[in-house]
Amino acid sequence: MTQEISCEESARLLLGWDHILVLTHASPDGDTLGSGAALVRGLRKLNKRARLALEEPCEKKFRYLLEGLSEESWEPEHVMSVDVADPSLLGKLRESWEKKVELAIDHHGTHVDFAEKKWVEPESAATAELIFLLLQELEASFDRDMADAVYTGLTTDTGCFRYRNVTPRTHRIAAAMIEKGANAGEINRRMFELKSKQQLEAERRVMDSIRFSSEGKCAIVFLPRSVYEETGAKEGELEGVASLPRQIEGVVIGVTLKEKENGEIKASVRTNLPADAAKLCSRFGGGGHQGAAGCSFRGISLKEAGEKLEKACGAYLKELENSFSGNSL
Amino acid sequence: MTQEISCEESARLLLGWDHILVLTHASPDGDTLGSGAALVRGLRKLNKRARLALEEPCEKKFRYLLEGLSEESWEPEHVMSVDVADPSLLGKLRESWEKKVELAIDHHGTHVDFAEKKWVEPESAATAELIFLLLQELEASFDRDMADAVYTGLTTDTGCFRYRNVTPRTHRIAAAMIEKGANAGEINRRMFELKSKQQLEAERRVMDSIRFSSEGKCAIVFLPRSVYEETGAKEGELEGVASLPRQIEGVVIGVTLKEKENGEIKASVRTNLPADAAKLCSRFGGGGHQGAAGCSFRGISLKEAGEKLEKACGAYLKELENSFSGNSL
Repeated sequence: MTQEISCEESARLLLGWDHILVLTHASPDGDTLGSGAALVRGLRKLNKRARLALEEPCEKKFRYLLEGLSEESWEPEHVMSVDVADPSLLGKLRESWEKKVELAIDHHGTHVDFAEKKWVEPESAATAELIFLLLQELEASFDRDMADAVYTGLTTDTGCFRYRNVTPRTHRIAAAMIEKGANAGEINRRMFELKSKQQLEAERRVMDSIRFSSEGKCAIVFLPRSVYEETGAKEGELEGVASLPRQIEGVVIGVTLKEKENGEIKASVRTNLPADAAKLCSRFGGGGHQGAAGCSFRGISLKEAGEKLEKACGAYLKELENSFSGNSL
Repeated sequence: MTQEISCEESARLLLGWDHILVLTHASPDGDTLGSGAALVRGLRKLNKRARLALEEPCEKKFRYLLEGLSEESWEPEHVMSVDVADPSLLGKLRESWEKKVELAIDHHGTHVDFAEKKWVEPESAATAELIFLLLQELEASFDRDMADAVYTGLTTDTGCFRYRNVTPRTHRIAAAMIEKGANAGEINRRMFELKSKQQLEAERRVMDSIRFSSEGKCAIVFLPRSVYEETGAKEGELEGVASLPRQIEGVVIGVTLKEKENGEIKASVRTNLPADAAKLCSRFGGGGHQGAAGCSFRGISLKEAGEKLEKACGAYLKELENSFSGNSL
């Protein structure tokens, strides 16, 4: 049984610990890395030994978060996780640590219990918000690196303060981090602007593949392996395309279909109200949130997966129209 | 002589006024409209007659700012301007009002004096920040519409809190506006995400036209009239493309060349440090800021303008390299 605890209780727990290992999730993003880096730096300021565990090296654009954070290799006495919604997301770290996690700090509404204790706030836009509150509670002084790390978590998990998950608290913490020296402009440039030529070319091809159906309410783009091979773009560089189809006027359901190395087809579905991405994906054994969800297909081609989804979108949109009859959908 | 006054003095001035006309700038953007709409609504709450003057109808995406703001047509007793950096930006309003502006509230560092009194804060990311402070000083209560209006000014002038002009105050005002009911998620979706299919197609063509030179440090994209004609996209829909070339890794100078209806070629130049867009544009009689500037060409084709700029960029980058020898440029 996982016990729910508060920010204050989490802080008290940490104050009694030393040699703390902080686990991040696989395919590390700005929030898990920013939360982890800020926490490890903060704990070290309190004269504790703390270190970060990454499942895999992080993308180049996130490396500044780890700069000057010396690697240490002692045996941990305590293990915790940040931004890990599910033990399966620990990837290669799972085998060694899953059963030893004493505290999970997370903001995912879909959080699956695996730690002894958890502090989970789904209303928080980013786990980094919780880490900020925790560090405040611990009375760790914020330096520039910690401010950069917390700010990175906030900005990456909110699409630069653009999404609906942003609350007044998100903005107030961002303000505090800029005051502590966070290099907000440069971080945002790296996270949201800078593109490699390969990425540009790959995005162009993906957008060229767009297929509209259901009178323009459904848009699907396709990402075959050949895009990576022919353009030289890396997988991480094309994460942003998932949000592109939904940005087109009139589109209610936007789908990105990616072919994985093992032949699996991964669908990222983004919806506008009143459509529910999680509901649609559940028809194919997937899940997620109302606005963003995913599902997978095996043993079929990218094209076939597209046809299946196009049909499912059409049927789903019809159902919606009937239940919202007279609505502007 | 224009007299500089403070927020408190501006508030005192307004408290003594009635029948107030609030001027906005031509090609109205989110900051001039948001500032103007918030101020007029706030003044009306204080039982003053106030109305907004637009030089031209605003773009469709901004119309929510004016919803429910009844049009009135009394003769103004007092005239002020918001976000107007230069009397020439009053456009068609200039002739009637330029000499009658008693108060200019603005945040442009390049503000040219034309009003009797001014309250100008160049460190403010948006004029909407100043309007927030003014309305607070006036003790006008914020309703949802006013919160939407101020938030719109903040988010549009900062690229959704992405640019270097954002300060802790910007974030704190955004937080307050969300608390007052600003529909931040939907506003950001309209301002930064929603694209028409025409726009999508036009952007694709523009990005297809990209030309790199100076070993990838200079990137130029071309926007001939045919793009509008063939895709059906409107001019305003392609404003965002000016920032695209500079977003490519390695690009120091990004240029967008637009062919205007009268045959004139307008260049929008965006640079990364240490390049100075204003310096480069001054060679062609243009100007602007370090990071963003512009210039025009007449009597030559789009292609010829591109060649001229490519050459100028090459020479300028060489100069920079010499003055920063050993630098990573």
